[in-house]
Amino acid sequence: MGETGHTAGLIGSVLTRHWLDPRAVAIWQDRATMQTWLDVEAALAKAQGELGLIPKSSAAIIAAKADVGFVDFDRFLAETAHTLHPFVPLLRQFEEACGEPHAGFIHWGATTQNIFDTASALQMKRTHALVRESLDLALASLADLARRHRATPQAGRTHGQHALPITFGFKVAGWVEELLRHRERLLDVERRAFAVSMGGAVGAFNAMEGKGRRLQKRLADMLGLVDPGIPSRASADRTAEYVSLLALLAATIGRIAQDIVFLQRTEIGEVFESFHHGKVGSSTMAQKRNPSATLNLIGLATLIRSRVNPMLETMQRLDEGDAGLSNVGDAVLPEAAILGASIVKGLAHVAIGLGVDEAAMSRNLGATRGLIVTEAVMMHLGRELGRHRAHEVLYEAAMQAFETGRPLGEVLADLPEVNAVGGRIDLAGLLDPASYLGEAPQAADQAVADAGAALGAIRKAAE
Amino acid sequence: MGETGHTAGLIGSVLTRHWLDPRAVAIWQDRATMQTWLDVEAALAKAQGELGLIPKSSAAIIAAKADVGFVDFDRFLAETAHTLHPFVPLLRQFEEACGEPHAGFIHWGATTQNIFDTASALQMKRTHALVRESLDLALASLADLARRHRATPQAGRTHGQHALPITFGFKVAGWVEELLRHRERLLDVERRAFAVSMGGAVGAFNAMEGKGRRLQKRLADMLGLVDPGIPSRASADRTAEYVSLLALLAATIGRIAQDIVFLQRTEIGEVFESFHHGKVGSSTMAQKRNPSATLNLIGLATLIRSRVNPMLETMQRLDEGDAGLSNVGDAVLPEAAILGASIVKGLAHVAIGLGVDEAAMSRNLGATRGLIVTEAVMMHLGRELGRHRAHEVLYEAAMQAFETGRPLGEVLADLPEVNAVGGRIDLAGLLDPASYLGEAPQAADQAVADAGAALGAIRKAAE
Amino acid sequence: MGETGHTAGLIGSVLTRHWLDPRAVAIWQDRATMQTWLDVEAALAKAQGELGLIPKSSAAIIAAKADVGFVDFDRFLAETAHTLHPFVPLLRQFEEACGEPHAGFIHWGATTQNIFDTASALQMKRTHALVRESLDLALASLADLARRHRATPQAGRTHGQHALPITFGFKVAGWVEELLRHRERLLDVERRAFAVSMGGAVGAFNAMEGKGRRLQKRLADMLGLVDPGIPSRASADRTAEYVSLLALLAATIGRIAQDIVFLQRTEIGEVFESFHHGKVGSSTMAQKRNPSATLNLIGLATLIRSRVNPMLETMQRLDEGDAGLSNVGDAVLPEAAILGASIVKGLAHVAIGLGVDEAAMSRNLGATRGLIVTEAVMMHLGRELGRHRAHEVLYEAAMQAFETGRPLGEVLADLPEVNAVGGRIDLAGLLDPASYLGEAPQAADQAVADAGAALGAIRKAAE
Amino acid sequence: MGETGHTAGLIGSVLTRHWLDPRAVAIWQDRATMQTWLDVEAALAKAQGELGLIPKSSAAIIAAKADVGFVDFDRFLAETAHTLHPFVPLLRQFEEACGEPHAGFIHWGATTQNIFDTASALQMKRTHALVRESLDLALASLADLARRHRATPQAGRTHGQHALPITFGFKVAGWVEELLRHRERLLDVERRAFAVSMGGAVGAFNAMEGKGRRLQKRLADMLGLVDPGIPSRASADRTAEYVSLLALLAATIGRIAQDIVFLQRTEIGEVFESFHHGKVGSSTMAQKRNPSATLNLIGLATLIRSRVNPMLETMQRLDEGDAGLSNVGDAVLPEAAILGASIVKGLAHVAIGLGVDEAAMSRNLGATRGLIVTEAVMMHLGRELGRHRAHEVLYEAAMQAFETGRPLGEVLADLPEVNAVGGRIDLAGLLDPASYLGEAPQAADQAVADAGAALGAIRKAAE
Repeated sequence: MGETGHTAGLIGSVLTRHWLDPRAVAIWQDRATMQTWLDVEAALAKAQGELGLIPKSSAAIIAAKADVGFVDFDRFLAETAHTLHPFVPLLRQFEEACGEPHAGFIHWGATTQNIFDTASALQMKRTHALVRESLDLALASLADLARRHRATPQAGRTHGQHALPITFGFKVAGWVEELLRHRERLLDVERRAFAVSMGGAVGAFNAMEGKGRRLQKRLADMLGLVDPGIPSRASADRTAEYVSLLALLAATIGRIAQDIVFLQRTEIGEVFESFHHGKVGSSTMAQKRNPSATLNLIGLATLIRSRVNPMLETMQRLDEGDAGLSNVGDAVLPEAAILGASIVKGLAHVAIGLGVDEAAMSRNLGATRGLIVTEAVMMHLGRELGRHRAHEVLYEAAMQAFETGRPLGEVLADLPEVNAVGGRIDLAGLLDPASYLGEAPQAADQAVADAGAALGAIRKAAE
Repeated sequence: MGETGHTAGLIGSVLTRHWLDPRAVAIWQDRATMQTWLDVEAALAKAQGELGLIPKSSAAIIAAKADVGFVDFDRFLAETAHTLHPFVPLLRQFEEACGEPHAGFIHWGATTQNIFDTASALQMKRTHALVRESLDLALASLADLARRHRATPQAGRTHGQHALPITFGFKVAGWVEELLRHRERLLDVERRAFAVSMGGAVGAFNAMEGKGRRLQKRLADMLGLVDPGIPSRASADRTAEYVSLLALLAATIGRIAQDIVFLQRTEIGEVFESFHHGKVGSSTMAQKRNPSATLNLIGLATLIRSRVNPMLETMQRLDEGDAGLSNVGDAVLPEAAILGASIVKGLAHVAIGLGVDEAAMSRNLGATRGLIVTEAVMMHLGRELGRHRAHEVLYEAAMQAFETGRPLGEVLADLPEVNAVGGRIDLAGLLDPASYLGEAPQAADQAVADAGAALGAIRKAAE
Repeated sequence: MGETGHTAGLIGSVLTRHWLDPRAVAIWQDRATMQTWLDVEAALAKAQGELGLIPKSSAAIIAAKADVGFVDFDRFLAETAHTLHPFVPLLRQFEEACGEPHAGFIHWGATTQNIFDTASALQMKRTHALVRESLDLALASLADLARRHRATPQAGRTHGQHALPITFGFKVAGWVEELLRHRERLLDVERRAFAVSMGGAVGAFNAMEGKGRRLQKRLADMLGLVDPGIPSRASADRTAEYVSLLALLAATIGRIAQDIVFLQRTEIGEVFESFHHGKVGSSTMAQKRNPSATLNLIGLATLIRSRVNPMLETMQRLDEGDAGLSNVGDAVLPEAAILGASIVKGLAHVAIGLGVDEAAMSRNLGATRGLIVTEAVMMHLGRELGRHRAHEVLYEAAMQAFETGRPLGEVLADLPEVNAVGGRIDLAGLLDPASYLGEAPQAADQAVADAGAALGAIRKAAE
Repeated sequence: MGETGHTAGLIGSVLTRHWLDPRAVAIWQDRATMQTWLDVEAALAKAQGELGLIPKSSAAIIAAKADVGFVDFDRFLAETAHTLHPFVPLLRQFEEACGEPHAGFIHWGATTQNIFDTASALQMKRTHALVRESLDLALASLADLARRHRATPQAGRTHGQHALPITFGFKVAGWVEELLRHRERLLDVERRAFAVSMGGAVGAFNAMEGKGRRLQKRLADMLGLVDPGIPSRASADRTAEYVSLLALLAATIGRIAQDIVFLQRTEIGEVFESFHHGKVGSSTMAQKRNPSATLNLIGLATLIRSRVNPMLETMQRLDEGDAGLSNVGDAVLPEAAILGASIVKGLAHVAIGLGVDEAAMSRNLGATRGLIVTEAVMMHLGRELGRHRAHEVLYEAAMQAFETGRPLGEVLADLPEVNAVGGRIDLAGLLDPASYLGEAPQAADQAVADAGAALGAIRKAAE
């Protein structure tokens, strides 16, 4: 990714590049991008040869020579500086590689952005495959975690305070279900997202002698892309939608990461990011075991989110084409794709290595000495006293328990209202968090089943 | 929408409320919102009565009394200020309306956010129906416009400069196809977006005696909502996705509006927003006919776009529930929905009234005296000279025509390269923009057909 | 704020209006806005009378009649619907109130947006005073908290893990210093932010008979606003800057709120949002004491942040004026101002009521049994072994302590490297967190002094 | 910037790197970044030597060896992958370069983020100098343009329609004044933006033996940075403010660029981006002269704007430090700085080369055959008929002129109301746009004077 030391910026710098999935970066490196442009030119020439738009012999030569090996990058850079055009300099070298008369039939009737957009669709599709692969890997791990901890009691928290008991498997099930919905979205969008675009300068196939739509359909088949029908260069909804979905997925991953970071807090200690001997948390505080990889997911989610607005803005292009805003798309899309693949890969990594401390979960669940199951008592007392009165009684009891530090059970045992209902409620039983888990284990089972259905054989192998 | 003069803010103020679809605002007014909460409580009671969680007689009373008519709003406001809770004060009044022992079974095992989220899903679904209705109306008008102008020649422009000829129908077809893709997205998302949520305080159905999932399924059926399976209160991907789609749709509408504003520019004058006698453009410049409604669509698109980021941020909720961020969703969602319905209604309005000046299109198409069809000449000269050399010849000729103001045809006629190929190319024919429209009319036909297929009978009626 | 039950949206709805500072809302209600428009018209007439642009007698009548009392709001709404103009209908009623010939001199040479922008600058300036007042109140409380806890030891945490000891006063000092920088920014921006604008339709004073710049200067003096020189209607940098500053300030408040929410976590319990008997945390979980007001600050920070992008976008207006984007500013600015005043008021409220549990701070500080002062040992061991070797020794010891749960002191005492340096280091002393507070108390002192200097007498009164 | 072909992403790729100011990129390349880290370590050692925290002899060695030349980048990358720490691997090589016992005193009491943040402040300050230099260059050119065209009449446009006459100098003056306000903001922020930060792991100078604040003050002096007082690692308001200002500045540049793109529209043709022979607008449309550099400024403004939200989010860091969000700052800041320097340089380039076609301005000004000065007539008719009645008369006349295409003067001459006032108004004079320029030329003069005052000698040289 560039001679070490001479790069800058999110994708290239040594400071940030280890955040990224190198497979995704490789798809979008200049060399790979140019090869993809040439692949599109080759396919275009072949299809035009078939349709009689250019000589078949020239098509064959063009296709054969479409290899990035011929590119003199220094010359390319120099000519770009003179022409201020990002593609014509490459075209000139490609023409020389093919020789006349074939050179004259390269890029026939196409415009630069046609090549850029079609190539970028191919690169998006390749990156999308990485996203899907990592997502399934993460799902398999998390589903397994949900299965193993379907009945491991844990404090459920809302608004930063203990609320009601759950199981750790239930928590993970919530993550799994949200990720499964993203998986569904990523499948839905394949119908639209990765489209060829070969309508020429204004999208009307002006130079295609009436064969433009057939040509475009043929190209879509050859390249495995969607045929867009009307290839308007001013339409950028496909890529904007895709980046929006990546941001939605990233927000879920950010949420999962935030949950993990909290659960690993020094005072909580319920889960742990994997740690290996030699991993350094700090140059001075030798004791530090930071959830670094997990924290980084939160950072990546923020970075991906920041790519949505420019993608929405790039949709408001002028007329039939608008370099000002298509430039934005050209700059944002590769980074959004790389970031998207990287955050999902990071999630899979964190999920696979996640450690769980059931003892800590149990200890924390008992921290409020019964307050966490106030609702359980209220639901039973409510049948006796009415829900409203029961809430008042429990509210007073809970406030007293909170302020004095006495266990809720003790406070309740002193209350006349509670004594009145006497043997009709099993106070000790109600105050056991493990007996008030609701359908948490069943929810975990459902997420495991849903993930299994989506992933097919993967769950089987994990058991 | 509030006693006149005493409102403020986007939805209520007289400065902005005429931008909005009043039907959408009506869905989200406090009175309607509270009625929807009560509708959810009623359905919850009925379903719990069926499942034996509460007495059937109480369920019947609760359902019967669930009418916003009983609410004393002033008391509600005063108690909210004391309890600092947005729902408990309403609950108290509802309890009084039902009387004991029934009152005790209202809201059984539910938490406030369950009611809020389920009610809000119902309101979203109702607003969604308005979005779809207006979108179909806009599509029908635009498809008709594409049909009528399938072959009306117009200058195609890229980067702010004349590029190649198109037809106006082709331009509109680009709008139609982009809108049809949004229509598809809006249909896709119905599978996920509007979900019941009835899992209690942490989503684990703790208080539902093991019948929570069945209850939730029953509620989904009764209310016409999606059953979410695991009703995690910390999951906000459904609403965030929906707002993302509205923003994508709005960006397309912003693009269309920008196209129209440009085409109505004083110097261009190719299209016109509808105008009626009495519409005032300016308090001082009496001549002004501003495309006000169209410009406002650009403003609305910007406002909707600004709702995406908070919706993405609201997804990163803590633990099992997080008022800090669910508050954000509660505040943003109604406004995003109202803005979404309003921008699509505004588009339909603009589309229906849009005037077209074919003479101006024709006049502008000729403004460059032939330069707009430079490519047509190049494609033919390219077969004679090679594409590269042809580009060079045309580049020089075009620069000369541009600088001297001479018609391109005259400049070309003087060139030896052009004379050399002599009669083999029909220069005059090539320089007629109307003969270089590519497949613009066919693209318009395709958009008309696609819209027709999507809208079914609507197109028929319009013809 | 509107007849109860019939409002919707962030500012008006009963669901959200209790988040807001009612004084800020009052400034921006329609009635107040219209009165401010009339105030601007009155000042304009008076200044034009002085400069001889309109008859002095008419100026006097116009100024005398400029009272919102004459407005028939229903008629205003009906005429707005017909003219589609937000100001001309008010002008007509104002003209009737003044009668001819005076009516003819209202709004002389001005354009609607001149009145809107100048009035909005006045409203911004009034809201700004609330922001500054609440900010000083918050600063005074927080400075007092820093003073009282200058030496209260607490665990310092980085990356979610205990890092080194601090004092609670040091933590608060960090908040105070960040807020003081915002205070400085809010003072700086007063030179630019609130400007009159009276250049007519395109900002060139076309109708002002050469007296436009003098008139504008006079108006600025009369209204207490900045004279902008060239009153370009297309320039929106002043308001965009102001909203950016509010978002920066809000982000700091969001950070403080997040710190408090964490420190109030059930397992941490170091600080507490104020609580009063009767405050309800949950309709079912009677025990809940949620940091609701603090969490809401996080939500408000997110909402304010979402206003920055539309304000930046509204700066890119077309030509000499652009309703599409100035509409955005008109809609966003009141809400941003109200949200800004409200979040700072909310911070002051939270700061004033914040409770501190020193015992919990002490207990948590000891939770790692010495690991939190690993660096202290390393700094001394480093002088003996070199920093690199010392890091290695401590890393191994810390990992062992972490995995076995043994106190770090015990682990270290067994190590030959530590024994070798023997009496030269005071291990027990180094392992006492209270002896490794660095300059935390002095930093607290500095923040107290800085706040005192900024606030002047306020600190004195608080002591 | 990396071996050609092997880079990806906004900063490194050949597709986008020509958008950027290479001087700004050079400041942020990895090699330069590491050298800046070493510069900070050197200054730290020297200051600690002076204060007796480390031996003076070691300080001297450390300072002498602090040259990036010793870095083995491949080894650095490999060790980063193992330690997962972005700085410790460099530290190890630096230690080897210094040798014991000196090595042990490198980085004494500092934490990695101290070095990163201080170095980054130095890099920001260097980039800031480029921003200021380019801004002054742009201002000098634009002020000269305003001076030359102070009285060149042009159509003023609002809402996309001709409104009133201005001069081109007046339009440019609006740009200049907005840029001058940004210049003021950039000066204001220097008091705060570029700060040293040397408080150790939690900002409390724990390891500095009570000399931390003196040390930090000394470092600030040595490095030319601001002394922050309390060096909280959780405070990120300084950098967020700076990026916000860049985005405000960029929005203004985006607006100017949009104005130019419109004025260069084929049908308008009033201004032209510089063009040189050899610049290619299109690979197929040889005639294209696109305002490419100007359009790119719009794209850059969008990209910069997208950096504001992550910077605001990065302010909400947890506790005393939070890698998740400080990572975001580390990734965004270099790109925002490079983009900021680049867009201002781009503006200077466009401003210097901008061509003006006065004849086109004049032609367009006459396009409405008098409608553009309707207000001039109304102001005079208003004195006769009252403003309200005059508006009605002119409204009808203008609508008629618009619909029939007759000159406004002709339509007016037929009206009884106009004839009635007869010789008291000079209709022909009023209908000459050049006589209704208001104070446009004087406004241009003021901007020239303001720019001159700000730039000092620069204006002189330009004349």
